Amino acid sequence: MHFLQIPGPTNVPERVLRAMDRPVVDHRGDRLPAVVHEIRRRLRGVFGTAAAEVLLWSGSAAWESALVNTLRAGDRVLSFNNGLFAEKFVEVARRFGVVVDEVQKRWGDAVLASDVDAALRADHRALLIVHNETSTGVTTDLAGVRAAIDAGGHDPLLLVDAVSSLGSLPFRFDEWRVDVALTGSQKGLMMPPGLAILCVSERALRAATAVDTPRYFHDWGPVVAALAQGYSPATPPTLEFYGLREALRMLDEEGLDAVYARHARLGEGVRRAVAAWDRQLLCHDLERCSNSLTAVWLDDLDANQLLRITASRLELDLGGGLGRLNGRVFRMGHLGALNELEVLAMLGGVEMGLALAGAPVDLGRGVAAAQAHFVQSPA
Amino acid sequence: MHFLQIPGPTNVPERVLRAMDRPVVDHRGDRLPAVVHEIRRRLRGVFGTAAAEVLLWSGSAAWESALVNTLRAGDRVLSFNNGLFAEKFVEVARRFGVVVDEVQKRWGDAVLASDVDAALRADHRALLIVHNETSTGVTTDLAGVRAAIDAGGHDPLLLVDAVSSLGSLPFRFDEWRVDVALTGSQKGLMMPPGLAILCVSERALRAATAVDTPRYFHDWGPVVAALAQGYSPATPPTLEFYGLREALRMLDEEGLDAVYARHARLGEGVRRAVAAWDRQLLCHDLERCSNSLTAVWLDDLDANQLLRITASRLELDLGGGLGRLNGRVFRMGHLGALNELEVLAMLGGVEMGLALAGAPVDLGRGVAAAQAHFVQSPA
Amino acid sequence: MHFLQIPGPTNVPERVLRAMDRPVVDHRGDRLPAVVHEIRRRLRGVFGTAAAEVLLWSGSAAWESALVNTLRAGDRVLSFNNGLFAEKFVEVARRFGVVVDEVQKRWGDAVLASDVDAALRADHRALLIVHNETSTGVTTDLAGVRAAIDAGGHDPLLLVDAVSSLGSLPFRFDEWRVDVALTGSQKGLMMPPGLAILCVSERALRAATAVDTPRYFHDWGPVVAALAQGYSPATPPTLEFYGLREALRMLDEEGLDAVYARHARLGEGVRRAVAAWDRQLLCHDLERCSNSLTAVWLDDLDANQLLRITASRLELDLGGGLGRLNGRVFRMGHLGALNELEVLAMLGGVEMGLALAGAPVDLGRGVAAAQAHFVQSPA
Amino acid sequence: MHFLQIPGPTNVPERVLRAMDRPVVDHRGDRLPAVVHEIRRRLRGVFGTAAAEVLLWSGSAAWESALVNTLRAGDRVLSFNNGLFAEKFVEVARRFGVVVDEVQKRWGDAVLASDVDAALRADHRALLIVHNETSTGVTTDLAGVRAAIDAGGHDPLLLVDAVSSLGSLPFRFDEWRVDVALTGSQKGLMMPPGLAILCVSERALRAATAVDTPRYFHDWGPVVAALAQGYSPATPPTLEFYGLREALRMLDEEGLDAVYARHARLGEGVRRAVAAWDRQLLCHDLERCSNSLTAVWLDDLDANQLLRITASRLELDLGGGLGRLNGRVFRMGHLGALNELEVLAMLGGVEMGLALAGAPVDLGRGVAAAQAHFVQSPA
Repeated sequence: MHFLQIPGPTNVPERVLRAMDRPVVDHRGDRLPAVVHEIRRRLRGVFGTAAAEVLLWSGSAAWESALVNTLRAGDRVLSFNNGLFAEKFVEVARRFGVVVDEVQKRWGDAVLASDVDAALRADHRALLIVHNETSTGVTTDLAGVRAAIDAGGHDPLLLVDAVSSLGSLPFRFDEWRVDVALTGSQKGLMMPPGLAILCVSERALRAATAVDTPRYFHDWGPVVAALAQGYSPATPPTLEFYGLREALRMLDEEGLDAVYARHARLGEGVRRAVAAWDRQLLCHDLERCSNSLTAVWLDDLDANQLLRITASRLELDLGGGLGRLNGRVFRMGHLGALNELEVLAMLGGVEMGLALAGAPVDLGRGVAAAQAHFVQSPA
Repeated sequence: MHFLQIPGPTNVPERVLRAMDRPVVDHRGDRLPAVVHEIRRRLRGVFGTAAAEVLLWSGSAAWESALVNTLRAGDRVLSFNNGLFAEKFVEVARRFGVVVDEVQKRWGDAVLASDVDAALRADHRALLIVHNETSTGVTTDLAGVRAAIDAGGHDPLLLVDAVSSLGSLPFRFDEWRVDVALTGSQKGLMMPPGLAILCVSERALRAATAVDTPRYFHDWGPVVAALAQGYSPATPPTLEFYGLREALRMLDEEGLDAVYARHARLGEGVRRAVAAWDRQLLCHDLERCSNSLTAVWLDDLDANQLLRITASRLELDLGGGLGRLNGRVFRMGHLGALNELEVLAMLGGVEMGLALAGAPVDLGRGVAAAQAHFVQSPA
Repeated sequence: MHFLQIPGPTNVPERVLRAMDRPVVDHRGDRLPAVVHEIRRRLRGVFGTAAAEVLLWSGSAAWESALVNTLRAGDRVLSFNNGLFAEKFVEVARRFGVVVDEVQKRWGDAVLASDVDAALRADHRALLIVHNETSTGVTTDLAGVRAAIDAGGHDPLLLVDAVSSLGSLPFRFDEWRVDVALTGSQKGLMMPPGLAILCVSERALRAATAVDTPRYFHDWGPVVAALAQGYSPATPPTLEFYGLREALRMLDEEGLDAVYARHARLGEGVRRAVAAWDRQLLCHDLERCSNSLTAVWLDDLDANQLLRITASRLELDLGGGLGRLNGRVFRMGHLGALNELEVLAMLGGVEMGLALAGAPVDLGRGVAAAQAHFVQSPA
Repeated sequence: MHFLQIPGPTNVPERVLRAMDRPVVDHRGDRLPAVVHEIRRRLRGVFGTAAAEVLLWSGSAAWESALVNTLRAGDRVLSFNNGLFAEKFVEVARRFGVVVDEVQKRWGDAVLASDVDAALRADHRALLIVHNETSTGVTTDLAGVRAAIDAGGHDPLLLVDAVSSLGSLPFRFDEWRVDVALTGSQKGLMMPPGLAILCVSERALRAATAVDTPRYFHDWGPVVAALAQGYSPATPPTLEFYGLREALRMLDEEGLDAVYARHARLGEGVRRAVAAWDRQLLCHDLERCSNSLTAVWLDDLDANQLLRITASRLELDLGGGLGRLNGRVFRMGHLGALNELEVLAMLGGVEMGLALAGAPVDLGRGVAAAQAHFVQSPA
């Protein structure tokens, strides 16, 4: 078996693959709407919203979709660069003429309430936040961010990248008064890549009718209207709808709270293994370390060499360092469909990879640390 | 068995479904590039080009991709409205500020060389053409269009929608000197919907570096660079790549010429059935009738009623009339993975559907006409 | 698409294939029993029994299983040779030393109550009957057989081959007081071949403990004991259990009466097509013609030539004449997962095959006869 | 992911599942023979024979098939009871009236050349041997057995149960002059359960025509004749043939020697883990310990309790003690499609299971021992 332990795309459960392995349906026929309606109902639960609009569309263009429907060229927004995906989110905004006040942070730190408090201004039309930085393994406390916004008395649109958090980490769209939360199918939702998914507040929908940014494929209006009937404006990825429905049923069967607890248990096991290896996490604040992936510094070894060894010798895919971290960190994904033994296999494989690369490592030590945590923590 | 006889998405062969029913791979790992390279090599054959750039991306946004990379707001282009998809292609262009000279045609007619000759002007930066109008079942002769362009002495970019033609009807990108040909995965390529596929000339690639239309997801630059290495700029729909590879291998095993001949045989069989029913084709010029779908007038019956009957009683999905043709025509898709007996089942089902709807029909007459053609024409 | 219109194995619905396309489970673990229990409960409904023992085992050895558990070498039984499978059932019995009084019948006739009345004797330990002769397309009236047995005052074990009837034609194990009914997975149960399935009366179970015929794999004792717990004596074909469960759920969703009515409608449509072709059925008594397959005489053509043409040119597999009927008849299967349009495709393909073979045929005439029946008969 | 680490059925690779997930084919049509021929050619390679007859049949009745075709009631044979499956093989023989001289051995010991030397007599018509005892994890040296037979000057038929060895451990049918080697699909051949597979010498085929044991389904004659044409006497499990072909292609791609070396590496890793746990193997002679499964004594714990914990808490299925060993040993399967990280996961899971059951265990110690072996042994 191949171990796919990158921070997404994640392993697709057999049930989900099977649900997609079926004849194509008529996308204008009467069988599809029930699927779409069920998906949207279940996704509302995962996003933590009672009534926000949930949009589904093919392609992995959720950032662009979120931005072109809510911002005009010339609008000013606030963002914090604490990782590659935060940086790219800003890049997309700038492509469309948005003026971004980009506050630099160490890659490996979370965005703090105090950061927001210090930087947010009345003319910021939106705040762009990455909930869980996939490049660094850091989770930002969105409840804290919301509190800081409220305390400041401003009211920017809150645009959140939830790509590697939704479905693995708790998300509370309504409680945090998020305006747009965006994700893809291929992370905590346990699907193959290919779908963009957005959750949109009423305020953001109003913005979408007001802004004049040129758009067609990404234009929310026709999507909202079609989805309300269970259809899509053009030909949607119908088979992926069947898969997503099955994945959402699986989350529901396990229970969202159990899913979050499982990720917390797996994440803690991985962090204890890293500590047992005497290696450093990229994330310094243990309270902010991500439960869906873990990035580890490698000073004594080119991280890409480690990845090549685990992939070619052990059938283990790990994530490399992205952008400025390339070669200096490796990332272990532990999100989506994953259990304790798979984490032990991954940790055992990292240990073997380090040994095979000639790096010092006590074989079994990280595995044992994770095992001890798993044995003690209730499943 | 359910008969999906809409003009796409088409039936996905078992082999193709199976090729996608597999664990997700690392999209940055070393297994994916060989798949991507093989796909692009085979797609060049289907597009009929030796060296044009073939782009693959998730989503069904091929129109937008073709336009935002080649045209600026304010550019003037020529188009002919001979069906719903030609009309929509123009709508997308206008969203991005392109000025369109849109010549009205009867829906059901092809674009003729004489149309181009009469309307093309020196300041037309591009000519937008739908090769095979899915709303009407009409194929435009692109060789004739190219000849008319050349005769006129102008040199607009030739942007072609090949959605319901590629892989079913002959396409000659190099010979016709097309600049951008665009399609989706779900028609003649026998895949589920979800992928945008473009074939791009060197001239169009140069245009893409010159125009300043805001874009990120659709921006060709990073896609071209990544695909050259067998990767994609962000997370691509990896499982669909495996499926597309298998579908292209199937086209190759049958042989493109045999594929085109099969569609010609099936299309002629369907047209003879329509004639045997004494009903009218939407397409008046038999030379221009599409071999991938057939649209038929219904004067004595609401076409949507026919569709409801065949879907609910006979497990047969047909295409309805689109836009202004809604309720007045029905469309039979006969593209992609399809053989003679499936066409007989479809025709037999249409006959039964007409009878069940109370419309006059001699049961078996259309089937017999198709059978006679199939028996006489060499397979 | 390939049309598999042999009289079994039949087309396996996608849902059933998907249910089998899954990781192997621990055959001694706690997940399998629920599957087995559900299968046995549902199969009782299909067999028409409240409490008889339903046995499942790998292999296609149901005849042998039925015989070696109920008969001793030297036991005398009655059988009627009205087709190849009736003949083979006897052959198996003779292999194990059973003395068979085999009454010859025309291949194409049913076993009549009067046949039983005339031939059954007090020393016949069992009566062997094929419910639906797959080689000839003839259904024997088991209610009539049971009445004739009762009228005669004897009480042989009633051993019934229900291979091509169960799940397609009504079967009433309890009402007809059958002792063993045997079938395979690959016909009306819509599964791939590979499973033997038996329904066994209490009296037959008692016989199984009394007879001394050497057996191990086929021995009912351990099978009965293990299945009661949801397990099997050795390693069972676990994936096929998942498939069978799904197939039985499908029968239940459609409703057994609706399934039987569908087969009656399809069978009548096929017979009307044969009449429209002016060709002869092998079965002379219309009341006894099978609703799951139809055998047709070919005087003017080698039937095997027709089969070669439809298979190679039309992707249509038909059944040939078996045994002494080889080359002289062809058989059309219309059992299992099948709808009206698939039957039209099959009939249209037979017509084309006859035309391509040079035999006289009015194309479309049989199709039209079937269509007329389908339109008039309520679905 | 569920870890299926019982000593078979083993994990079925995705490629194999996909190869079976396909429409049923006409079992008398012209597409199946090529599949059957390829399977038989490849199986000859796995059995290590140039020309022996390889038989395939549905059902898991290979023992019975081997015995009823080669032995008469009253024939005398020699067997050694060194495990449950050796014991059952004898039980089957006795059911058919064969007289068995059954030599008792400790369960956990191999059959030695000296055992054969001491017990084999001129009137032993056959020697029954289990190559790899699945109940104990012990491999008998068949080359040594053959040498002992030859040295003794007798010439019994050599009937070998290769169920849990074939495809995982080296097998040399011709070199060892085996007469019948039997196996199932669900172990080293990486298929779901359901197929019986036998390799038969010319001498055994001659015996099959001489013996008069009653049989029909198991009778080799019709099977040999049909398989030579690529068919089967009755309806074979066609989809499983496609799966088996794919599995055999996979063995060929990896290379049989590499497959055997992989199993040797995995088996040694497991044994080192057991030693690191300070627990006892059931097999005392390290030279004879099986590379496809390992049985471990549990003195301080009910083995079934361990199995319940690993199954319910860790998604890990292990094998329990069979027969007289029930509750006292557990068995780890490491055959078929398996790599090093999966073995680490299994070992880590056993350690956690022991800890959760309250048994003393140093977490990570066995994992580390296996890792050390894997790092040092070339892959």
